[in-house]
Amino acid sequence: MNTRELVELAQQLRVDSVRASAAAGSGHPTSSMSAADLMAVLLAHHLRYDFDRPAHPGNDRFVLSKGHASPLLYSAYKAAGVIDDEELLTFRKLGSRLEGHPTPRRLPWVETATGSLGQGLPVGVGIALSGRRLDRTGYRVWVLCGDSELAEGSVWEAAEHAGHEHLDNLTVIVDVNRLGQRGPTRHGHALDAYARRFQAFGWHTVEVDGHDVDAVDRAYGEAASTKGQPTAILARTLKGKGVTDVEDREGLHGKPLKDPDEAIAELGGPRDVRVAVHEPTAARMLHAVRAGHLELPRWDKGGDDVATRDAFGQALAALGDGRGDVVTLDGEVGDSTRAELFAKKHPDRYFECYIAEQQLVAAAVGLATRGWVPYACTFAAFLTRAYDFIRMASISGSGINLVGSHAGVAIGQDGPSQMGLEDLAMMRAVHGSTVLYPCDANQTAQLVARMAGREGVRYLRTSRGGSPVIYGPDEEFPIGGSKVLRSSEQDRMTIVAAGVTVFEALAAADALDREGIRVRVIDLYSVKPVDRSTLRRAAEETGCLVTVEDHHEEGGLGDAVLDAFADGRPVPRLVRLAVRTMPGSGSPEEQLHAAGIDAESIAAAGKLLVEEAVVR
Amino acid sequence: MNTRELVELAQQLRVDSVRASAAAGSGHPTSSMSAADLMAVLLAHHLRYDFDRPAHPGNDRFVLSKGHASPLLYSAYKAAGVIDDEELLTFRKLGSRLEGHPTPRRLPWVETATGSLGQGLPVGVGIALSGRRLDRTGYRVWVLCGDSELAEGSVWEAAEHAGHEHLDNLTVIVDVNRLGQRGPTRHGHALDAYARRFQAFGWHTVEVDGHDVDAVDRAYGEAASTKGQPTAILARTLKGKGVTDVEDREGLHGKPLKDPDEAIAELGGPRDVRVAVHEPTAARMLHAVRAGHLELPRWDKGGDDVATRDAFGQALAALGDGRGDVVTLDGEVGDSTRAELFAKKHPDRYFECYIAEQQLVAAAVGLATRGWVPYACTFAAFLTRAYDFIRMASISGSGINLVGSHAGVAIGQDGPSQMGLEDLAMMRAVHGSTVLYPCDANQTAQLVARMAGREGVRYLRTSRGGSPVIYGPDEEFPIGGSKVLRSSEQDRMTIVAAGVTVFEALAAADALDREGIRVRVIDLYSVKPVDRSTLRRAAEETGCLVTVEDHHEEGGLGDAVLDAFADGRPVPRLVRLAVRTMPGSGSPEEQLHAAGIDAESIAAAGKLLVEEAVVR
Repeated sequence: MNTRELVELAQQLRVDSVRASAAAGSGHPTSSMSAADLMAVLLAHHLRYDFDRPAHPGNDRFVLSKGHASPLLYSAYKAAGVIDDEELLTFRKLGSRLEGHPTPRRLPWVETATGSLGQGLPVGVGIALSGRRLDRTGYRVWVLCGDSELAEGSVWEAAEHAGHEHLDNLTVIVDVNRLGQRGPTRHGHALDAYARRFQAFGWHTVEVDGHDVDAVDRAYGEAASTKGQPTAILARTLKGKGVTDVEDREGLHGKPLKDPDEAIAELGGPRDVRVAVHEPTAARMLHAVRAGHLELPRWDKGGDDVATRDAFGQALAALGDGRGDVVTLDGEVGDSTRAELFAKKHPDRYFECYIAEQQLVAAAVGLATRGWVPYACTFAAFLTRAYDFIRMASISGSGINLVGSHAGVAIGQDGPSQMGLEDLAMMRAVHGSTVLYPCDANQTAQLVARMAGREGVRYLRTSRGGSPVIYGPDEEFPIGGSKVLRSSEQDRMTIVAAGVTVFEALAAADALDREGIRVRVIDLYSVKPVDRSTLRRAAEETGCLVTVEDHHEEGGLGDAVLDAFADGRPVPRLVRLAVRTMPGSGSPEEQLHAAGIDAESIAAAGKLLVEEAVVR
Repeated sequence: MNTRELVELAQQLRVDSVRASAAAGSGHPTSSMSAADLMAVLLAHHLRYDFDRPAHPGNDRFVLSKGHASPLLYSAYKAAGVIDDEELLTFRKLGSRLEGHPTPRRLPWVETATGSLGQGLPVGVGIALSGRRLDRTGYRVWVLCGDSELAEGSVWEAAEHAGHEHLDNLTVIVDVNRLGQRGPTRHGHALDAYARRFQAFGWHTVEVDGHDVDAVDRAYGEAASTKGQPTAILARTLKGKGVTDVEDREGLHGKPLKDPDEAIAELGGPRDVRVAVHEPTAARMLHAVRAGHLELPRWDKGGDDVATRDAFGQALAALGDGRGDVVTLDGEVGDSTRAELFAKKHPDRYFECYIAEQQLVAAAVGLATRGWVPYACTFAAFLTRAYDFIRMASISGSGINLVGSHAGVAIGQDGPSQMGLEDLAMMRAVHGSTVLYPCDANQTAQLVARMAGREGVRYLRTSRGGSPVIYGPDEEFPIGGSKVLRSSEQDRMTIVAAGVTVFEALAAADALDREGIRVRVIDLYSVKPVDRSTLRRAAEETGCLVTVEDHHEEGGLGDAVLDAFADGRPVPRLVRLAVRTMPGSGSPEEQLHAAGIDAESIAAAGKLLVEEAVVR
């Protein structure tokens, strides 16, 4: 396209953004208008993308980090001919694919859900890593950011990651329109302020007038030809560009235009420019999944104690042998989580993300968009750092595996800052998630392999210290299942435990048995989905339940158990044991005792519960 | 102290770090040894601190961001004469104040709990903001960081915040020992790599040999005399400095020395150097809390609809009139959360944190250390970004108020990225937290004022859309209470709701009443602590419960209700209604209906529940 045609296309994107927002009665037209020229030039001259084949391995990848500018994205889709005008005007209506913020669950051309700012670049880095280190097709990753979102630390985690990895297949385009939601940004139109920051993190930068289509065109060309560094294009723009009533004005964020007809007239009226987007270059198919033989590690039942984190590391390394699509990401604690065992066997599929948990999860999401099966690993406690990314991953429908080690007070001396005590609650509350908490080595190994086959966000919780191997290597552990470890017709109570508390529960059952109280013990390794039928049967047959977990009392195992009874059926009498105090330092045994989740505490609580039943 | 004495002091800190870790059998001596000279010079020459009066308003503030170097901190306390050698050797033992990572709950000289990396500087910025903008005493804030933790984005949110606010009372000292936990950092000993980054964010930087006590002394002096900019001191150090066996070696992170006696001998043996730390300069007492008359806004019962976010903003502004210690922080959405209403009346106590939610919460924690009562406000969904900071705030015992607006599917068209649907679970799982979810304006106003008086982390959830005013302005809403909105002796069921679902519950009760089914309705505005007695009475008197919440089904209102029955008593039959699907766009009404939490859904579920009871 020549200059005039590019300008026409950009004006059309503005007009359509105004029209879509007007039809919806909500949306962000002014945030779309600032970036219309940036989008027009990208679409017409630089993006290589086959809209009919969004999975084409050679396709460039575009991420709209400023997801609220969705009218611009959908207007671009219309210009590319993949949605029609009628659909454009369904924007933000119930059932429409064109949601307020774009999601890949609805639209095949969207790489990742955005709308929580500062996430597009981190995910884009993950996609670019895939392109550079794994896929090795020549695609580029283009991320369109707002200027406000550069205040998010996650952007600088991503900038550091991309700079360090020399991701010259990555370009971030910053729409510097100087206005955030509630007013001016910190740096206004000072492009050099942003340039200094990106340069410090090892990026090439280009400053440009974001409404000069020829200058933008040259800037994209410079980005594509820059070697050894990612490029940040800092584009000076005006929010609401092109419509006098709203251009560069405060207080108009996220509002449709008051007089859309007048605005459309000022923009030169509706157009029907069609863009022929460049085809991707030929590329080999997406990485072949090497279907090697999966041979998980095996431990002898009753053998030496094994920490579930050790079993995890060994199983993950074995999974890497069996599946060529498994990749692993480390948050600079691979020696602790044992992710490093994977690194030793598969260094090409191992990504060191250093101490940057948001980037750790975002890179996993990015890798998953390219068909890889990522395992992102850090301490359970530190996954809280990435909760917004985990939440957004679920909105994307992203299939990522998260592994949190050092769960609970059982870690011992390090104290509460290192103890995952909120992780089960956090992960359970994620839509469509899977939450697993194994207690022994063979169980861990199986779950590591099985979780890869689930939809959505999957979480595995591992423990620091060694624990007995109570299952044989051929035992099966379906997700959604549980194991009844002890059972008789005389059971007067059921103890439900998982992870480290399984062993405390077994010891408590022994103690109660000596007092003539027979107790059922369930290992609830699948916290979500939960094994409702086994729990219900136990409740019916034994009358009452004690749940015990190395986690705060809210949102964890106890709540998962109650979930089995929240459908109107009679609920068993129940006592929940959990970590109710703020732990300090101490040995693992001291910690379990102080928290009231050791065998002694379980036995005492169980006895009270049963005796109360007798009194009735 | 002269050079020789400083060196002696530093060696003593090393020796004591080795001894404490050896006594504990765990800990991080090598991470302590790298920073021993940095700490010695700070303690002896630059820190102005009265250990007998940690609350002295003129005291400098020291934050050990690399909290795992706690042996160094405790050794410094010993050198300052505030703990003795016997206590030093209780390090990491059960009941000791000297935990694996330092916490202010145990030690009066610790400002904030650390141990999750990248949090010390963000909190330090909050303290420095207090010093510069509120307290206006001359204290300095010194933060000792590791180099690994500079990969955390939160550090750059803080750097941006401090640079923008020209916090020249803030110094960060980076112990660049080049080794992280599992190996070398990205930048090794390249001090200039870190200097470029800090400079780009507006900081003054000094590069120094961190083992040259005179050079360090000069660097601290330069930091203290630098005007208009915060200073970053980048100190080249060696991990394990001073002991040949461990110096600058990989694989020794977090491990006590194998031969502590030999190491101590190499370090020149134990010493008993005492440091006379400089007194703080005289300063006026901590800010007077203006005990103005608190006059909360009032709305007429049955008057126009009011959004709880609007009521929040007005109440917060009024609270600012009544209490001089209340401050407000905004995540660049003050127009949406209505925090801007506070800004208009009290601009001096309003802190714009831009789109950086980790920094938003960290600054609140920092301000709270100085006695301020912060309200940090953003969308409920975006508080997930700061979960690790919220978790750490609870470990600090920090009294912060968090306010999340735009909760749930009821926001409408914007879609799931903007909907807080995990916030109740996340906040409930925080130790010692308070979780409030008001439904009307008068209730909101009261809770805004009451939450300030609670210990620990307090969370208020507000809604976007208007809702009826169903309570009079003089109604009382104690935290831990609830309101029975409808009740009779014929009630056959209880609906428990909060926030937007209260109105759906009332409409459902009307509908059921028309079918001859009398229903009790409880407004459970205090989600944690929960009103156990009212819930239990309702269960006993009506037999079954329906809970309904605009939140995912895990960890929210439904689980809070079950909490009232997890003590072994009989549990009522119960059905939980919550958001079980992934929402798209749509109107608020469409969203409530699609999620199955509107009046129609409640009535249908309630009817089934009651009829099943009849059948029995």
